[in-house]
Amino acid sequence: MTDTPTFVHIREEGPREGFQIEPGPIATADKIALIDALSDTGLTHLQTVSFVNPKAVPGWADAEAVVAGMKTKPSVDYTALWFSESGLQRALAFRDKLHVAGALIVCASETFSKVNLNRSMAEHMAVMRQQAAALKANGVPVQRVGVMAAFGCNYAGDVAVRQVLAAASDALALAEEVGETVTEITLADSMGWCTPARTEALVGAVRSAWPGLNLILHLHDTRGMGVASAHAALKMGVDRFDSTVAGLGGCPFAGRPGATGNIATEELVLLCQEMGIETGVDLEALIEVGRMAERLVGHPLPSTLLRAGSFSACRERAHTAALAA
Amino acid sequence: MTDTPTFVHIREEGPREGFQIEPGPIATADKIALIDALSDTGLTHLQTVSFVNPKAVPGWADAEAVVAGMKTKPSVDYTALWFSESGLQRALAFRDKLHVAGALIVCASETFSKVNLNRSMAEHMAVMRQQAAALKANGVPVQRVGVMAAFGCNYAGDVAVRQVLAAASDALALAEEVGETVTEITLADSMGWCTPARTEALVGAVRSAWPGLNLILHLHDTRGMGVASAHAALKMGVDRFDSTVAGLGGCPFAGRPGATGNIATEELVLLCQEMGIETGVDLEALIEVGRMAERLVGHPLPSTLLRAGSFSACRERAHTAALAA
Repeated sequence: MTDTPTFVHIREEGPREGFQIEPGPIATADKIALIDALSDTGLTHLQTVSFVNPKAVPGWADAEAVVAGMKTKPSVDYTALWFSESGLQRALAFRDKLHVAGALIVCASETFSKVNLNRSMAEHMAVMRQQAAALKANGVPVQRVGVMAAFGCNYAGDVAVRQVLAAASDALALAEEVGETVTEITLADSMGWCTPARTEALVGAVRSAWPGLNLILHLHDTRGMGVASAHAALKMGVDRFDSTVAGLGGCPFAGRPGATGNIATEELVLLCQEMGIETGVDLEALIEVGRMAERLVGHPLPSTLLRAGSFSACRERAHTAALAA
Repeated sequence: MTDTPTFVHIREEGPREGFQIEPGPIATADKIALIDALSDTGLTHLQTVSFVNPKAVPGWADAEAVVAGMKTKPSVDYTALWFSESGLQRALAFRDKLHVAGALIVCASETFSKVNLNRSMAEHMAVMRQQAAALKANGVPVQRVGVMAAFGCNYAGDVAVRQVLAAASDALALAEEVGETVTEITLADSMGWCTPARTEALVGAVRSAWPGLNLILHLHDTRGMGVASAHAALKMGVDRFDSTVAGLGGCPFAGRPGATGNIATEELVLLCQEMGIETGVDLEALIEVGRMAERLVGHPLPSTLLRAGSFSACRERAHTAALAA
């Protein structure tokens, strides 16, 4: 219990995750408005856009226009996602506004690698080797490795902790080979397999293997276990989490738009707040941005906290009523 | 961590909670079908109907017909809810099918008592005294006390642990006064204020005060903290929980039917399963009943697990694919 951190760093990925998956179309100005609103909540890490092939992801055909239009604050680290050399070049064109940092992302499930990346894990390592070279050639340091499907796989079932360690090892070895100093490792729950028990096992094993690395968890709430898993991780001292405002980016299973993907940032903030952990985020402001996100996408988003409102709002009303009585 | 129980007793309240709140009308035969289906999942505690004023709760105007029509299994404890002497008499008419047990339910928040029960806490204690007498006169033992608003209150804000202890004390004193032996205490999160931190504080305090009582938690997932709170309680050894299949009984805030009330039984079962805790429940069967509940009420229910499906289904597919390869 004494491992609980005093401050948690939240990496907001709502715009990038959400606008990629929403049927839309969502106006460029609305995307910019959401990013600008998130900038004003106290969040310090904001993943904004995805520089991907517009034919594959039409929702991000306007990535350049969004980055060009968004305001930046010095207190916020703005990042973007890309998967190819051309995506990297598109990101580098905005080096004045974006923190362009490299990452080597691998996969812990052979089947997921084939289904999702269309290549085996070995073939993917070759691609990562090319990516590492491209990053180096462009002067972009690699500070992070990531492991996809680290909690389990819809195609392969359970993923053993040793598979995660092996995948992370490969990525770290590659980073070392190209002379990069990795400081962070992301464990990504790509398909919603996190549970508190699994999280504890994984966090313990990765920590023991690489005690010097900062651990980032990217948890999905697909089966209702996301917040509980985050709580288990917080108890073990994990202090970096990816999340999305309002739970943007929920996977729309079989036409049910309420299905849940990423854990909702406001639920993570509430969880921390009630444990006495600082996040720097203004929860009331964030909830307002969540409601704005729902208006922009035109349907309810998964976060339950958006519907109920925070404790603070109730406390405030109770206080006002007591004064009036 | 060693406090974690080996078996968790789940008290399913889906039919009673759900059919009370659903706009319906839902056919009596459908209500019976859901109860019968739940009986076949391995659940051992099933709260079926509410014997309340049909004018106040039209959804339960057919309570008698539902109990008359439902099948009973010896392995299942079927219960019902009532609040008045006339409700008790209606329940007692089905003593052959229902386990009619008394409970003294009090409230930890003066404001909630006034808003919800239309009387002060002191006035409510007088009503409970009458109820205790009625139970005694009818030979119904009182084995349980319950505290509403134990986690917080939308009208009064935070509820201090000492308020919960005081309310529980009053109920226990009344039980003793009328010569009843209480063995269980329910802490009810009537308005969705549970968080893991609050749960830990409350469980610890109530356990210290009454180490001989079995603790039951009735948690709501209104703000996304329900499963995480259940996990925190499991870690402390709590082994009795109320829940509802598919999250039936979600409070429809402002026309958003996806808003969440009770924690979903299937998410609780999954949480336990992955911690190595037995519940006796067949998760796949329960998920099917959850989908049946959605068909009966005619709209999606809050449980996210219903959308994603269990891990076992994925494991099964992966196993089959591996054999075929």
